[in-house]
Amino acid sequence: MSRPIVLFTDFGRGDEFVHAVERAIRSVLPLARIEHATHEIPPFDVYAGAAALLLSAGSLRGTVALAVVDPGVGSRRRPIALGCHTGTWLVGPDNGLLVPAARACGGIREAYEIVPARVALAGVSPTFHGRDLFAPAAAILAASDDGFLVGDPIEAEGLVPAPFEVGERFSVPVQTNVLGIDRFGNVRLCVRAEGIETRVGERFRVATARVTRDAVVSLTFSDVERGEIIIYPDSSGLLAIGVREGRADEVFGVGPSDAVSIEQPRRSL
Amino acid sequence: MSRPIVLFTDFGRGDEFVHAVERAIRSVLPLARIEHATHEIPPFDVYAGAAALLLSAGSLRGTVALAVVDPGVGSRRRPIALGCHTGTWLVGPDNGLLVPAARACGGIREAYEIVPARVALAGVSPTFHGRDLFAPAAAILAASDDGFLVGDPIEAEGLVPAPFEVGERFSVPVQTNVLGIDRFGNVRLCVRAEGIETRVGERFRVATARVTRDAVVSLTFSDVERGEIIIYPDSSGLLAIGVREGRADEVFGVGPSDAVSIEQPRRSL
Amino acid sequence: MSRPIVLFTDFGRGDEFVHAVERAIRSVLPLARIEHATHEIPPFDVYAGAAALLLSAGSLRGTVALAVVDPGVGSRRRPIALGCHTGTWLVGPDNGLLVPAARACGGIREAYEIVPARVALAGVSPTFHGRDLFAPAAAILAASDDGFLVGDPIEAEGLVPAPFEVGERFSVPVQTNVLGIDRFGNVRLCVRAEGIETRVGERFRVATARVTRDAVVSLTFSDVERGEIIIYPDSSGLLAIGVREGRADEVFGVGPSDAVSIEQPRRSL
Repeated sequence: MSRPIVLFTDFGRGDEFVHAVERAIRSVLPLARIEHATHEIPPFDVYAGAAALLLSAGSLRGTVALAVVDPGVGSRRRPIALGCHTGTWLVGPDNGLLVPAARACGGIREAYEIVPARVALAGVSPTFHGRDLFAPAAAILAASDDGFLVGDPIEAEGLVPAPFEVGERFSVPVQTNVLGIDRFGNVRLCVRAEGIETRVGERFRVATARVTRDAVVSLTFSDVERGEIIIYPDSSGLLAIGVREGRADEVFGVGPSDAVSIEQPRRSL
Repeated sequence: MSRPIVLFTDFGRGDEFVHAVERAIRSVLPLARIEHATHEIPPFDVYAGAAALLLSAGSLRGTVALAVVDPGVGSRRRPIALGCHTGTWLVGPDNGLLVPAARACGGIREAYEIVPARVALAGVSPTFHGRDLFAPAAAILAASDDGFLVGDPIEAEGLVPAPFEVGERFSVPVQTNVLGIDRFGNVRLCVRAEGIETRVGERFRVATARVTRDAVVSLTFSDVERGEIIIYPDSSGLLAIGVREGRADEVFGVGPSDAVSIEQPRRSL
Repeated sequence: MSRPIVLFTDFGRGDEFVHAVERAIRSVLPLARIEHATHEIPPFDVYAGAAALLLSAGSLRGTVALAVVDPGVGSRRRPIALGCHTGTWLVGPDNGLLVPAARACGGIREAYEIVPARVALAGVSPTFHGRDLFAPAAAILAASDDGFLVGDPIEAEGLVPAPFEVGERFSVPVQTNVLGIDRFGNVRLCVRAEGIETRVGERFRVATARVTRDAVVSLTFSDVERGEIIIYPDSSGLLAIGVREGRADEVFGVGPSDAVSIEQPRRSL
């Protein structure tokens, strides 16, 4: 049985693009197990795409993740496949998109530049590498687990860097950025929540460029009152800011990549 | 072959949540047959979620429906699994979400409170029971059809009640509420259309808080003129109000849970 | 193994309609290989639906495409199944929706009017032929490849015509219409890009009712500067207008079906 192929794109579901990728995968591997992570990454937004992949990293063991957010399609940016230590393949453009997830999947064990002649069945459209290069490469990796079948080895050091860095643990003061906003308005940060379990109940000051508010460390929303702000470990393992029955993104006036700090509260004299 | 698992959530498709649930199901049951009913239930809207499940009830025979609209996640609200008389399992939070669908699936034959230690493979995130409790419980039920494998029996009488009641048949006068608005602007009501087939061609007054209009009972839009209002049996078996080539929700100025009445027309003196 | 069934609808994903179609297919063919092309066709928009099918035509070899955009549901418009020369079945209403894709799939080899009694397991809802007629017909065709099992032969000449015509090749001057706008703002035209490869680097005038601009023929965006306009072969094989790192639909102020011309540039005297 082949590995699942998990799709992450900025294609939306209104055009034929996602289905064309699915058909291209199945032309190599008719019974491919295709899963749709998200196709709602904002167009050409590599930061948001890298965030989406990172947030799913915990679910990608044993899969091939095919990620396409590719403003440079048709240019000289390289098509790549990264084999990670925890047994995940990441396939997509070399524009930083794959790097944060690769780290979260145990780091890069092997990296390949995809060679079009090795994977493309017919021609390669200069505007749709998702269908013509990445899809067949992902299908071959899902079936074979062998990077040499899709490309030539390259040095991981030469990859385009990640669009953001992720802090390793919750250690106050925190100076970080917004990784993304979830559907419920929670603000996810570029820091792992490692260490937060010993700080439950402590109060801190959360500051953005526009708003500063007090917040309490909590493992869940149901421990605080309506409207209260919490600092909590997101289900993905990252640090997040939430408001019970409210939207933290609106309370703090922030969006992706904005700066956020968490500091000790000011003591009254 | 295991039962299909049908997903209903308020997660949207922009975050990693749906795929995380899918991966959690497949960690128990690698070849699970996962179907996506909808992920567009408005966040935390238990009324809309219960409506979505009810509208699909006719399609759920022989499946496990996994429904997550869960404002109380992390609190003491119980995770439950309901076995219905027509052979459907409903899995989700005990907040009324599952109750209307359970009735439409022949009523509750057996009810269980899910026991985390029996289904959770690793820890349980206090903010994501969909992934950590409901997904593995659904997978176990899809494979086994045995509620004791996921929890302990509870009394159906003690469940949190439904957010709305559904009338059994079309009997004028009707005093009811809007169950929901479909994509085409049709207004679905909390009443079954049972009995409507004998009233075709009759005219009634449809009234909301803002608008009163005449409407004719019809089985299909193509029997009336453009702009005309019909009372008809929705494809789900519920009573609905529609406007040929128009939007009934806009004509009547209504949304979910608003009151609607259907009465005999006033006769001119 | 049965053929994949590919869904194209205007149902959205917020209601139960898509899943009801999926369940109806599986009631005939439990292990049907269902693929979702798009469900975001604007409600009742046959032009946009025919465009979506056409844009996917290159991916439909060996599949059954089930398309539902059906403002006339419940009226006398015929339910049809078209067998195409390249081995694709198209199933849906006889309202022009299927015709452009049928041509792109090599033309119609055989046409059938679906006979409800031959495919409908239970009754047929007058408002939901997608579930009650088209879904089982598609499932039967996916399993059998035999049109006589779903209906009676009809003449292709009698079908409702396509909502648009598609030009065969890029030959200046071009007088055409907008087929559709993709997620990235590119303007796809009702003309194939056949012949464009010999014109790379040539400049033309692109005119809509509101805007006239110069554009260069290019195979990819990365060959031009930011903001420059290109005429290029879309990944579907159609002619398209794009703006590097911009939205051509906004630059030209156009939407589906609007007129577009491509002409020789004016020479300065």
